[in-house]
Amino acid sequence: MTPPSSLESLIAALRCLPGVGPKSAQRMAFHLMQRDRPGAERLAASLRRALETLKHCERCNTFTEDDICERCRSPKRDAGQLCIVETMIDMAMMEQTLAYSGMYYVLMGRISPLDGIGVRELGLEKLLERLNDEAVREVIIATNFTNEGEITAHYLMEMLKTRPLRVSRIARGVPVGGELEYVDAGTLAQALRERKPAVE
Amino acid sequence: MTPPSSLESLIAALRCLPGVGPKSAQRMAFHLMQRDRPGAERLAASLRRALETLKHCERCNTFTEDDICERCRSPKRDAGQLCIVETMIDMAMMEQTLAYSGMYYVLMGRISPLDGIGVRELGLEKLLERLNDEAVREVIIATNFTNEGEITAHYLMEMLKTRPLRVSRIARGVPVGGELEYVDAGTLAQALRERKPAVE
Repeated sequence: MTPPSSLESLIAALRCLPGVGPKSAQRMAFHLMQRDRPGAERLAASLRRALETLKHCERCNTFTEDDICERCRSPKRDAGQLCIVETMIDMAMMEQTLAYSGMYYVLMGRISPLDGIGVRELGLEKLLERLNDEAVREVIIATNFTNEGEITAHYLMEMLKTRPLRVSRIARGVPVGGELEYVDAGTLAQALRERKPAVE
Repeated sequence: MTPPSSLESLIAALRCLPGVGPKSAQRMAFHLMQRDRPGAERLAASLRRALETLKHCERCNTFTEDDICERCRSPKRDAGQLCIVETMIDMAMMEQTLAYSGMYYVLMGRISPLDGIGVRELGLEKLLERLNDEAVREVIIATNFTNEGEITAHYLMEMLKTRPLRVSRIARGVPVGGELEYVDAGTLAQALRERKPAVE
């Protein structure tokens, strides 16, 4: 008198989604089967297609359907600059600034011992290879300012120290439009420590 | 320079899951493609299998892989009682009480004008048909005590009024083990109104 096994295995399979526990998985399965079978069809087909076509760009490691992604192939980008970000989303955020026209390397994660992601799991060999191959003059580390992002940034800086490269980290500080009243003390302390001389 | 289209369509397809907005869908898609491709394989296969095999029981409307579900076929259940619930989960809750051995009818939803689910969308013809066919003596309405569940219960009671059936609604009141101090006023008022004579 248990639910049919195909429903049970769907509920179990939905648990692989991040942030989905047993109750949500049940709710999702019922919703799909009862109210949105076309949506379930689309989801199954998209998963299948993504699994078949998505791979990592040989140069920047981002997801692409080609061997080398559109951005890495573009002659308009400055090949001398390489910005290292954690995810494709971060890369999209950087692009939105319209302030950067160099290349990227997408780590597809960050060092996070608590999640069992160490240097080996991140696969930094590919990044090192990328740096060997290239006439890259400058590396900009744009990992997040979370604990994991900072650990990753420090590891990268150590790793790149001996290379003839300009290595920098994007700046921390008070956000543009930010009021001191609403900024946390850590950020404000950092902004004070990293104050810049007022040059005309 | 947008994400590859197979990734974009996966993100879009994940939006069909209840409670999943654009940010979660993006996170889920990256997680599946980067960290859990076997999980994505399993999910695609389970969706496909569920879509192919799951149908509604001809008698109780629950999900099953057969024409008539195991419970409706069981000779051990009392065919004279029919308990109407909103979902399969509610049916499972009723079963856990071990206090009911009759049949069920699963509405697979409730009347909810705000979600565009009216009487027609619920498909109550199947329930009426079920009641015609059967030697059902008693109907127990066990929809939720939410606004939608109550509207549904009232509609069902009106609908069944003219039929030669004992129709009842499960009781509202103070939960077993509940302390008056922590029960909301509405529940307590209801428990007072529906007080039962103390019979020895």
